[in-house]
Amino acid sequence: MTEPLNVEQAAARLREADHVLILCHKNPDGDTIGCGSALYHALTAMGKTAAVLCVDPVPRRLCYTRPRLFRGEFEPGLVVAVDVAGTQLFGDTGLMPSYSRRVDLCIDHHAGNNGYAQYTLLDPTAAATAELLCDVIEAMGVELDTQMADCLYTGLATDTGCFRFSNTTARTHRVAARLMEAGARVEELNTLLFSTKTRGQMEAERMAQSHLEYALEDRCALIWLSQDEIEASQADPADLEELTALPIGIEGVRVGLTFRQQPSGSWRISIRTTRDVNAVAIARRLGGGGHLRAAGCELLGTLDNVKSAVLTEVQAVLEAPEETVCRES
Amino acid sequence: MTEPLNVEQAAARLREADHVLILCHKNPDGDTIGCGSALYHALTAMGKTAAVLCVDPVPRRLCYTRPRLFRGEFEPGLVVAVDVAGTQLFGDTGLMPSYSRRVDLCIDHHAGNNGYAQYTLLDPTAAATAELLCDVIEAMGVELDTQMADCLYTGLATDTGCFRFSNTTARTHRVAARLMEAGARVEELNTLLFSTKTRGQMEAERMAQSHLEYALEDRCALIWLSQDEIEASQADPADLEELTALPIGIEGVRVGLTFRQQPSGSWRISIRTTRDVNAVAIARRLGGGGHLRAAGCELLGTLDNVKSAVLTEVQAVLEAPEETVCRES
Repeated sequence: MTEPLNVEQAAARLREADHVLILCHKNPDGDTIGCGSALYHALTAMGKTAAVLCVDPVPRRLCYTRPRLFRGEFEPGLVVAVDVAGTQLFGDTGLMPSYSRRVDLCIDHHAGNNGYAQYTLLDPTAAATAELLCDVIEAMGVELDTQMADCLYTGLATDTGCFRFSNTTARTHRVAARLMEAGARVEELNTLLFSTKTRGQMEAERMAQSHLEYALEDRCALIWLSQDEIEASQADPADLEELTALPIGIEGVRVGLTFRQQPSGSWRISIRTTRDVNAVAIARRLGGGGHLRAAGCELLGTLDNVKSAVLTEVQAVLEAPEETVCRES
Repeated sequence: MTEPLNVEQAAARLREADHVLILCHKNPDGDTIGCGSALYHALTAMGKTAAVLCVDPVPRRLCYTRPRLFRGEFEPGLVVAVDVAGTQLFGDTGLMPSYSRRVDLCIDHHAGNNGYAQYTLLDPTAAATAELLCDVIEAMGVELDTQMADCLYTGLATDTGCFRFSNTTARTHRVAARLMEAGARVEELNTLLFSTKTRGQMEAERMAQSHLEYALEDRCALIWLSQDEIEASQADPADLEELTALPIGIEGVRVGLTFRQQPSGSWRISIRTTRDVNAVAIARRLGGGGHLRAAGCELLGTLDNVKSAVLTEVQAVLEAPEETVCRES
């Protein structure tokens, strides 16, 4: 089993090491990339050699974090994983499998971390791994510069929905204050990460909103977009994910549904629920899956038939108390 | 002219007073209501009599701030305005005109505050008046309780778009941390303030979005709502403030305009800009005022005339480099 470390001990291991390989999780988000990059910049500032490895490319929107990507050019003296809760999250392509099985140090905030590394610095009360890594970098004796602060702020802000989600604590805000004092360009980052939609997204949103309807005594709200509309909007289909927050964000609505027609003609249905309704129970009745509050399925048929099939199952779950109630951990 | 006070001096005046009347601005937002309510609760906790006066009702969504509303039941010993930059913002109905002309103390964060009060505590570096009032209440010797913390958090979070806007500083985050430690129920408040829309808001947003247009080579985006539409939407007019984030949130747009027709028929125009464009320079050319990135004005005329007048000034500012560039402190 893994040996738990505190911030000082983790910092000491990093101070003593050189040729540090930093591993991020697959489908990388702002926290794993922000932390990987911040640690890379901190180690470089100490004169060490370091690089970051991730099976997927750094998302375009996060390119400003500027990590050096590992291409096998050195033999790692220390392998560190940041924000990776379990080995299955590394992915298994390219160089990754050679290193993901011998992780020396893991720095993480996921309560479910399964202790795969030799040493683990785990703090599940941290809103983001970045919140924890900020302390580690300072304990390494590195003064935060603008670049590191930008990277850490990225992790902190993306994992908390810009300080909106329930994981945000007083410490999260104090770390944000330190990062701002270290020069984090929060104005640009917030705009980039949270406030900017493409014209295509706006157009798709406008069309989806024009189809807004309520059902089941207003406990359910739904929006939809046909394939023709998605094409006409010129939105990147990946950017339509945000639409799913729209119907569930309406006061009094307990189940929010978003129907997006796929190029094949079938309908992809996203199910979002308030904390007293089990989204995955609805999805499973329709052959889909997901999480307690966010789930989905895909159905063939005309919009009217698909709507009616989905609403039947929503009603069944709303009216079956044992399935309705979410037992969240 | 007004006499400037510091936090200690303002707190001393409040400590010495009794029968305090607190004035909020018309079309009240989270900062003026949050501050009015927080100050009311703080004074009450000291055993004083206090009440809040606003020409408009407290928005339903902010009712949890629970201010006692003034109905003329005492003769004020001290009249305090919170978050009110000029006398025109008090409104002139009901009891207001009897008090708005004799304001003893003004606590505000608007750089354009015109010094109408006998004494003024002004800090334009504060993201919200709540950020400043938090210090004042502590200097009054009152320990923040959950109710006051909720009210102050409301002001802080709404004026910064939940710590997203450029007015957010390290101090803003530190104040948020103090408010969380004092018991502010940020999870519920964030859901209520930022993740939930009423059906009326959704309907108003749908209508505004259907009027989305681009101007000045797409550097400007604008939306509008007529008074008939606002009424048809059944949205609380106070809840329409969020619409103003919509046009400026579009990729590539440098000036976002929101036109809302008032019951009088005039048009209230909200101007939002990216960091390289001076919103208040545009507003001032139209007889309005505000901040560098968020300003506004009110104009009479048909929609077409008003649009054209505003776009002329937007163009002038976009093309006058010296006015365009914001020199933010």
